[in-house]
Amino acid sequence: MSLSASLPDLVAALPTGMVVTDADILAGYRQDRAQDPAAGTPAALVRPTTTAEVQTTLRWCAAHAVPLVTRGAGTSLSGGSTAVDGALVLSTERMRGLSIDSATRTATVQPGLLNAEVKAAAAEHGLWYPPDPSSFEICSIGGNVATNAGGLCCVKYGVTADYVLGLEVVLADGRAVRLGGKQIKDSAGLSLTRLFVGSEGVLGVVTEVTLRLLPPQPSACTVVGIFPSVSAASAAVLAVTEQIRPAMLEFMDAVSLNAVEDLLHMGLPRDAAALLIGQSDASGAAGQAEVALMQQVFESHGATEVFATDDPAEGEAFAAARRAAIPAVEKLGSLLLEDVGVPLPALPALIEGVAAISDTQRVTIAVVAHAGDGNTHPLIVFDPADADQTQRAQLAFGQVMDLAIALDGTITGEHGVGRLKKGWLPDQVGADVMQMTAAIKAALDPDGLLNPGVIL
Amino acid sequence: MSLSASLPDLVAALPTGMVVTDADILAGYRQDRAQDPAAGTPAALVRPTTTAEVQTTLRWCAAHAVPLVTRGAGTSLSGGSTAVDGALVLSTERMRGLSIDSATRTATVQPGLLNAEVKAAAAEHGLWYPPDPSSFEICSIGGNVATNAGGLCCVKYGVTADYVLGLEVVLADGRAVRLGGKQIKDSAGLSLTRLFVGSEGVLGVVTEVTLRLLPPQPSACTVVGIFPSVSAASAAVLAVTEQIRPAMLEFMDAVSLNAVEDLLHMGLPRDAAALLIGQSDASGAAGQAEVALMQQVFESHGATEVFATDDPAEGEAFAAARRAAIPAVEKLGSLLLEDVGVPLPALPALIEGVAAISDTQRVTIAVVAHAGDGNTHPLIVFDPADADQTQRAQLAFGQVMDLAIALDGTITGEHGVGRLKKGWLPDQVGADVMQMTAAIKAALDPDGLLNPGVIL
Ligand SMILES: Cc1cc2nc3c(=O)[nH]c(=O)nc-3n(C[C@H](O)[C@H](O)[C@H](O)COP(=O)(O)OP(=O)(O)OC[C@H]3O[C@@H](n4cnc5c(N)ncnc54)[C@H](O)[C@@H]3O)c2cc1C
Ligand SMILES: Cc1cc2nc3c(=O)[nH]c(=O)nc-3n(C[C@H](O)[C@H](O)[C@H](O)COP(=O)(O)OP(=O)(O)OC[C@H]3O[C@@H](n4cnc5c(N)ncnc54)[C@H](O)[C@@H]3O)c2cc1C
Repeated sequence: MSLSASLPDLVAALPTGMVVTDADILAGYRQDRAQDPAAGTPAALVRPTTTAEVQTTLRWCAAHAVPLVTRGAGTSLSGGSTAVDGALVLSTERMRGLSIDSATRTATVQPGLLNAEVKAAAAEHGLWYPPDPSSFEICSIGGNVATNAGGLCCVKYGVTADYVLGLEVVLADGRAVRLGGKQIKDSAGLSLTRLFVGSEGVLGVVTEVTLRLLPPQPSACTVVGIFPSVSAASAAVLAVTEQIRPAMLEFMDAVSLNAVEDLLHMGLPRDAAALLIGQSDASGAAGQAEVALMQQVFESHGATEVFATDDPAEGEAFAAARRAAIPAVEKLGSLLLEDVGVPLPALPALIEGVAAISDTQRVTIAVVAHAGDGNTHPLIVFDPADADQTQRAQLAFGQVMDLAIALDGTITGEHGVGRLKKGWLPDQVGADVMQMTAAIKAALDPDGLLNPGVIL
Repeated sequence: MSLSASLPDLVAALPTGMVVTDADILAGYRQDRAQDPAAGTPAALVRPTTTAEVQTTLRWCAAHAVPLVTRGAGTSLSGGSTAVDGALVLSTERMRGLSIDSATRTATVQPGLLNAEVKAAAAEHGLWYPPDPSSFEICSIGGNVATNAGGLCCVKYGVTADYVLGLEVVLADGRAVRLGGKQIKDSAGLSLTRLFVGSEGVLGVVTEVTLRLLPPQPSACTVVGIFPSVSAASAAVLAVTEQIRPAMLEFMDAVSLNAVEDLLHMGLPRDAAALLIGQSDASGAAGQAEVALMQQVFESHGATEVFATDDPAEGEAFAAARRAAIPAVEKLGSLLLEDVGVPLPALPALIEGVAAISDTQRVTIAVVAHAGDGNTHPLIVFDPADADQTQRAQLAFGQVMDLAIALDGTITGEHGVGRLKKGWLPDQVGADVMQMTAAIKAALDPDGLLNPGVIL
């Protein structure tokens, strides 16, 4: 039976209007934020609101061998939510339920809620959901779980995986299972909860997440350093992280600083080679010591200007500048977005190596980084109308990942492999781990219907 | 080919003396700390020192279809390292390599090192490895990884999984793979590192672990409360954890207090119904506020005595008392050791329910708990010579797990399912999750040779 012949069954099984085939609407669900021009065109879009509707959809996919692409908010930078020709796109945007349980200090949420909405709901109960991808206002919590998203505070507070206590997942055959729960510790059976975090939609659709919340973050002091070279700044990063665990330690290079200044006009230093933004949220004397240490390290590493503030608004302005980097650099041209990470001592070599690749390939590469984690985002700028430059940009894209692998690092620290980086995954993890990955995928999705083309 | 006929191949392939068949020595490798009388007798013992030797051993097992039980230090409380008739026991006790990398703040260790040795080596470099099972002086780091061990400080600092950045694992077919590495963040491919943590030896043998270390723990203040009832104490636990994240919050009941006092003679209050030991390691005013809050909560929940100390030695004496609970209660008789955990608000119901089970079955149940995590250890005491009492103890063992499941909790918060709790795992996680578990097991160990009888 062909897809179009069987689609009416799905339409009939779901509430009116839930299945969309209108080409104009579908067009908006082809690409994600990586804007891959090779994105496919889905056969239909489903926007369920309940787990049962997700199950109905997956059962139909299984019965008709139709591949399914799960889409959260579509902010993937690695093509993870890019559509595939003839596939069904399942968008979680209408799965927006939420409850906060102060007694267990947990939030139980449907996947379509935005990260910022979860943070806000927790804050209303005097609680804090730490993970803060720069995209926190526009990305879904389901997407965060599926990519194991990081962010600015994770240098001290960890990544999404550290906050996921429980999941409800719909499997390829339509069964819904619960993994983990509200208990804080659980060693019962294989760690399937942790396997599903970061699984990028290839093992199942996350339909509910139980998140651990913390007491509110203590207010933070911010230290900003302006550096005459990227190497001075990256050396300062190491000197800080060897001694303390800051609550934030972010890096911006000259290209990203200028792009953000063009966008925000906030008086960023246009002639700086690099900027570091550090924060400490330790209280009392410990916090003062951390701030003093960052100031002193920035100065002794040649910063031309260093200043500290305990005004939260001022600190947030710098964090916001850092978060604006990707949208700002997007204004310079089309982007190939990297997410390479290395063990910290290799950070200077990575940043210098990226500069060398930029020189060799004659393409602009802006670099921002969650520097305290060794996780960098070289953003390769190119003009798609210039075929030669496009090709050089693509070469650079691969060379940056090759460099990270050569430095014992990873091709992706937080964005996931998606469709755009999978060519490099075997080089990082090796054939045996690829085989293990394929075996686990086959064990849970034997027909390979979930997010085909991602990771594998 | 029979096992004994093919064993000489393995003996020849490994260094002289590495394969042991001496019955007296083998006897010491039959049971783990759960002391299951039904433990099997292994065919042979292998004590490798290198990954290559582990690979040789597993290739031989695969070729001859011989099951393999991996054993760390044998302190499992759930029968995880109990031998199986005719199996090979692989002991990691001679795999003791260690290197500390201050720059990446990581330790890379072979699995046989004891937790305390890793802590000590980190401390020599001015660093801290937080996870601290009560058994830290006698359990191996490989066993900690395999069970996702917890401990006293994990209420604030997390469990073993939160510190494992990378693993080397030998698979059932003898291939050695590397998962993760020294980079702090990694979203490349499925989270196999996290799948292997807590996998209790059923997916592979962990041959090397890369652990994240922290800057040293700030010195802690200790608050001790003596309570007239277990329910007052467990209510106080909730009142504390709703407001702060203490660095420790441990519970002891009257039976465990008296057993420890018998052993250590340190002046513990023999007539108390329960004792809470809280710690705060927050600095400055924040720390003072946490200590004051714990004091005030203990008092307002009816504690008959509350005292606080910032003397580390005094604090450690109480922690040591808590850690001595299992060995002390072991002196009262044979034990069935529980490890049930619940979402925190259910802690009072769990503790009261255990008391009711103790009454009904007329068996002594001592309770200690990592209370701040909702993770309790009811220790069921019985005399194996008394058949009727033994049977009632076994009934109680199941009833405590049934209770935890009914309270939406877990049958094991940190000890693992092992061989002794697997009968209850399906009741906790359901048939679908058991099927997923079996499918993943089959994907990685198709012949089912690794730790047969554990989990599945
Ligand atoms: C300006 C900008 C800044 C960013 N900064 C950061 C950052 O600091 N840190 C960071 O980690 N990322 C960052 N990102 C990347 C992106 O926002 C994250 O990867 C985010 O987690 C994706 O969420 P989403 O809802 O948009 O997911 P989508 O793009 O819709 O999907 C991402 C992947 O998750 C899968 N998926 C989504 N929902 C589900 C579900 N319910 N069940 C199963 N699979 C699912 C998809 O199939 C896809 O593979 C940034 C992106 C932008 C545009
Ligand atoms: C007095 C006492 C107090 C305790 N307190 C705590 C506590 O506070 N928190 C806690 O979590 N536990 C506690 N335990 C339980 C026990 O110490 C832990 O489970 C510990 O992690 C086991 O380590 P081990 O080296 O003894 O492992 P073993 O008992 O040898 O093995 C445990 C499991 O791990 C597997 N395994 C061991 N090494 C490897 C390897 N290299 N590769 C693959 N699989 C392997 C085994 O097959 C088995 O399934 C306590 C035990 C005692 C006796």
